[in-house]
Amino acid sequence: MASYQEMSKEELLKEKESLLKAYEEWQKRGLTLNMARGKPSAEQLDLAYGLLNAVNGDTILDMNTEIDTRNYGGVDGIKPAKELIASMVDADPEDVIIYGNSSLNMMFDTIGRAMMKGICGGTPWCQQKGLKWLCPAPGYDRHFGVTEYYGFELITIPMHEDGPDMDMVEKLVSSDPSIKGIWCVPKFSNPQGYVYSDETVRRFANLKPAAEDFRIFWDNAYCVHYLYDEVKIPNLLEEARKVGNEDLVFEFVSTSKVSLAGGGIAGMVASKKNREDALKTLTVQTIGHDKVNQLRHAVFFENGKKIPSHMKRHAAILTPKFEAVLDALERDLGGKDCGSWVKPLGGYFITFTTLPGCATRTIQLAKEAGMTMTGAGAPFPYGKDPEDSTIRIAPSYPSLADMKMAADLFTVCVRLAAVEKLLGE
Amino acid sequence: MASYQEMSKEELLKEKESLLKAYEEWQKRGLTLNMARGKPSAEQLDLAYGLLNAVNGDTILDMNTEIDTRNYGGVDGIKPAKELIASMVDADPEDVIIYGNSSLNMMFDTIGRAMMKGICGGTPWCQQKGLKWLCPAPGYDRHFGVTEYYGFELITIPMHEDGPDMDMVEKLVSSDPSIKGIWCVPKFSNPQGYVYSDETVRRFANLKPAAEDFRIFWDNAYCVHYLYDEVKIPNLLEEARKVGNEDLVFEFVSTSKVSLAGGGIAGMVASKKNREDALKTLTVQTIGHDKVNQLRHAVFFENGKKIPSHMKRHAAILTPKFEAVLDALERDLGGKDCGSWVKPLGGYFITFTTLPGCATRTIQLAKEAGMTMTGAGAPFPYGKDPEDSTIRIAPSYPSLADMKMAADLFTVCVRLAAVEKLLGE
Repeated sequence: MASYQEMSKEELLKEKESLLKAYEEWQKRGLTLNMARGKPSAEQLDLAYGLLNAVNGDTILDMNTEIDTRNYGGVDGIKPAKELIASMVDADPEDVIIYGNSSLNMMFDTIGRAMMKGICGGTPWCQQKGLKWLCPAPGYDRHFGVTEYYGFELITIPMHEDGPDMDMVEKLVSSDPSIKGIWCVPKFSNPQGYVYSDETVRRFANLKPAAEDFRIFWDNAYCVHYLYDEVKIPNLLEEARKVGNEDLVFEFVSTSKVSLAGGGIAGMVASKKNREDALKTLTVQTIGHDKVNQLRHAVFFENGKKIPSHMKRHAAILTPKFEAVLDALERDLGGKDCGSWVKPLGGYFITFTTLPGCATRTIQLAKEAGMTMTGAGAPFPYGKDPEDSTIRIAPSYPSLADMKMAADLFTVCVRLAAVEKLLGE
Repeated sequence: MASYQEMSKEELLKEKESLLKAYEEWQKRGLTLNMARGKPSAEQLDLAYGLLNAVNGDTILDMNTEIDTRNYGGVDGIKPAKELIASMVDADPEDVIIYGNSSLNMMFDTIGRAMMKGICGGTPWCQQKGLKWLCPAPGYDRHFGVTEYYGFELITIPMHEDGPDMDMVEKLVSSDPSIKGIWCVPKFSNPQGYVYSDETVRRFANLKPAAEDFRIFWDNAYCVHYLYDEVKIPNLLEEARKVGNEDLVFEFVSTSKVSLAGGGIAGMVASKKNREDALKTLTVQTIGHDKVNQLRHAVFFENGKKIPSHMKRHAAILTPKFEAVLDALERDLGGKDCGSWVKPLGGYFITFTTLPGCATRTIQLAKEAGMTMTGAGAPFPYGKDPEDSTIRIAPSYPSLADMKMAADLFTVCVRLAAVEKLLGE
């Protein structure tokens, strides 16, 4: 196929004409497609059908949870739920605190706690000035939203295929005590699907922060969310423990995209010191999270044993959708030099990189043909993509048939925006 | 019966001897009793047996919730759950935001939000100095704990049978802009079981605070928790609306002591302006609370219709326990002038008032005979009962048989402590 970059003006005009024709055909079809949302499909949620009835009166009495899950108490969660969350990230169940249904809420609360009370006896963050937070980007817009809410200055860290730019992370963290944390999605990063290398994880474990109250927010959101085979990364808390750095880590895990996005459980993995510090606030904040739902999950997933087979069922639904997108990209864009993409091995997204300055236009073209995509800039701090080139594609929610249509339309929009750009329009 | 106050020293010594003998008998029995915890009993939790299986795959599809409850979204809660919570406090479902399983957490978050962002655009509370909070006392220790956590100076307001001392509340609130809120349990107050009078509610609705960001924290924890007939109080938000004061009110409701203490749902009732302000934070904090559990509650309680009959079943279990305590108090302490109590018509507690300076000793005596009670001072700000005379009795959790024994032992301890006091020991 001909590279757009090498085409003459005439060839580009001809290509544009043909693309416009195709685009107008799409517009005429009056479709409503959505590739914006990193949500599981109804088909995936059906996989947890049995969860809904996993707990009844007999289960309550039979399960040895040391506590009646229906009653008050047990602020750190029941043991079988700790085992379940621990199994997902190879953690020690003793290191787990179970929260409610949202890991995002858990991260929000973790920062809120530090704002009010500081970290492990340190000065409350709300009494410190000029606080900064490191944001590997492209990244998760809701992460950036939380630290923006709390008034941090967001510092962009470039993302590479093996994780955040660790030279930059090490340099900043070791020299600037106003940097209090970093967002990480170490496995199948949102949105690029990158997996942190062993070296990256170990460099994180060995950080020597200038601020005593610096913490790594390790959001292991896609820890068991493989599209193909299992992919392993080192256990950060374990690596940090080896070098006496275990208090550096807050790891966050949830079953939102394992069981139910609207009714799962979430857990935090942390050192004893960090857990004790968290519990000082938690015991004021609540008498306990929903332990019945914790029990429901423990029963349905047999304290974690059933997670791997359950995730294979998710993959069987998700992988064809991801491949439909990747096939369309390869078929329509391969060799055209009008954008690039990475094939992910897990997670919920494909990142497409357009020619510089073409992301907003591509998304606008898609919208005007009936397809909603994640807004341009969303994966960057303050919603600003400096290159205007990153597009997050979320293949999970639509049906496979819709996804195929969406991908076909997407490649038309990408090409049209690229041709317009190259023509200097 | 003879009043202790009128006894001669000789008579008191004789009474003491007889009480000591009875007390030693109790000690010999080696009992383990607990009247400390305001927790529902297992028998009460069994009433919600059907809740556990109320939602399955078919329910999910059949219920018109405008959203798949299993998936992300719906940060303010599903409509049927709003109707359920609204029905409990005669509110408009439009005024409700549904949260997670804990109303305490909801209150904690509401203050946390004001600390970081202020109330409706006001100066963040964490940037204001010398903040105060009004605490009608005796009151709920966990309320006081939340405002103590956030650094407020706790101002004690005396509680009367018709509610907090409103002369004092009005005077303080209208003159001191550093007062930002007040804790209220308007119906069957914790721990006295007092019901705010219509006048008290209306005076709250008509408050003219010096601080624009003053709010009434109206914890309607026992709104449907009758021991006998229904008891009505005016709807605060409605009364406040009548006088253009609707932004003054945050009302909190939960099903913790309706369905399951460890797996219920909670909701906040507030004006449009307050809800919009809350949602600005909530949409950063979470993608949504557990909507499957919201649906479970809506189905089991038919959006609220079944609440009254369900609460009658609770009363059938609770009322005999309350009466066992009250009967023992009347039988053993009536006419003795060694303490007083109020018969509650709902809620979870009986408050017993000892002679001044006798609460700690009474509780200590109980403990040394194997019975745990709520710590002396707990119902007061900073855990300090200025009179050392208030004891909170929680009859719900033990069996009726245990409750009867506990009450019998309790009256011995009360009398013994009183006699010691009157003897000047």
